[in-house]
Amino acid sequence: MTQGPRDIEDLIDLMARLPGLGPRSARRAVLQLIKKRSLLLIPLADAMQTVAATARECVNCGNVGTSELCEICASEKRATGEICVVEDVADLWAMERAGVFRGRYHVLGGTLSALDAVGPEELRIPRLVARVRDEAITEVILALNATIDGQTTAHYIAEQLEPLGIAVTSLAQGVPIGGELDYLDDGTITAALRARKAL
Amino acid sequence: MTQGPRDIEDLIDLMARLPGLGPRSARRAVLQLIKKRSLLLIPLADAMQTVAATARECVNCGNVGTSELCEICASEKRATGEICVVEDVADLWAMERAGVFRGRYHVLGGTLSALDAVGPEELRIPRLVARVRDEAITEVILALNATIDGQTTAHYIAEQLEPLGIAVTSLAQGVPIGGELDYLDDGTITAALRARKAL
Repeated sequence: MTQGPRDIEDLIDLMARLPGLGPRSARRAVLQLIKKRSLLLIPLADAMQTVAATARECVNCGNVGTSELCEICASEKRATGEICVVEDVADLWAMERAGVFRGRYHVLGGTLSALDAVGPEELRIPRLVARVRDEAITEVILALNATIDGQTTAHYIAEQLEPLGIAVTSLAQGVPIGGELDYLDDGTITAALRARKAL
Repeated sequence: MTQGPRDIEDLIDLMARLPGLGPRSARRAVLQLIKKRSLLLIPLADAMQTVAATARECVNCGNVGTSELCEICASEKRATGEICVVEDVADLWAMERAGVFRGRYHVLGGTLSALDAVGPEELRIPRLVARVRDEAITEVILALNATIDGQTTAHYIAEQLEPLGIAVTSLAQGVPIGGELDYLDDGTITAALRARKAL
């Protein structure tokens, strides 16, 4: 042992496994926690215990919530006939921050991947097809990441939904708002040029 | 509420107050925690509660430990007659990782600062003077940061220790091992040149 007592070392090791923290920043974070015991350490431990006890997956869409149905699925206001399909909860939150989509979501929990043996069942795709039937859905918006896996998954879902005769759309690709051409990759510029619009 | 249930929002807000995490990385970390509930979230909550209950400041040197005297102050092997003075516990840990110093420490908990009203009492400087008398100390090594505040504090401590007739030294300044001159600041190059040594 070169740094501190076992308890503190254990906490540092666990903190270092969080995304965005390495061993060095975990040490700094733990020292900060010890310094601010009543202001930060105890509230954080309590908040974690609360979330560990209450957080659960929405049975309908896979979003994170504290009851069987998440707030979005439970809200009558969100019954717009539109479902937005996202890869994970972080993407759902990003969509919600934009505040522009008023329908419900379907969280896949990943993308199809032969390499990682992720099939349609693992991604709740049969459940999505069932929802489209049951919830009187008129449009499914595929908001998957613009990666190869994301696009493969999007095409597979579009195929599955085709017999149902609803609109299946995907997010537009192009130059980000505020983006400078000089800093954009070739793929984005190509996509933006192909999808050019009349002014 | 645009992102999730209150409990989860609260946890994100607390996580975002850790050094090295912002609002966005705190969200990612919390989603990871929820995904790895039994592997990460519950162990982390438990480890925090343990540290909150056990961590305390060493009454002798200010290091973090789990008993009245920290492991270093309690160890007879570290009674070398040398005290290394550091600004905070992170610096003590950095010294211990280097594994080269075998004496004991004195953690100031900051630097003298007229602006923030930090005086000698707040930094345990009288306690350091008492320790030098009581522990048969022969050398005090000032390992303070090479900042203006750090160096001011070093000079003040050197003055306080002068009447005791012991050796007061400070870490050498110069080119870091593996450092390239091209990337070094002027101050470091100046210090390294002034302190040049015969080969």
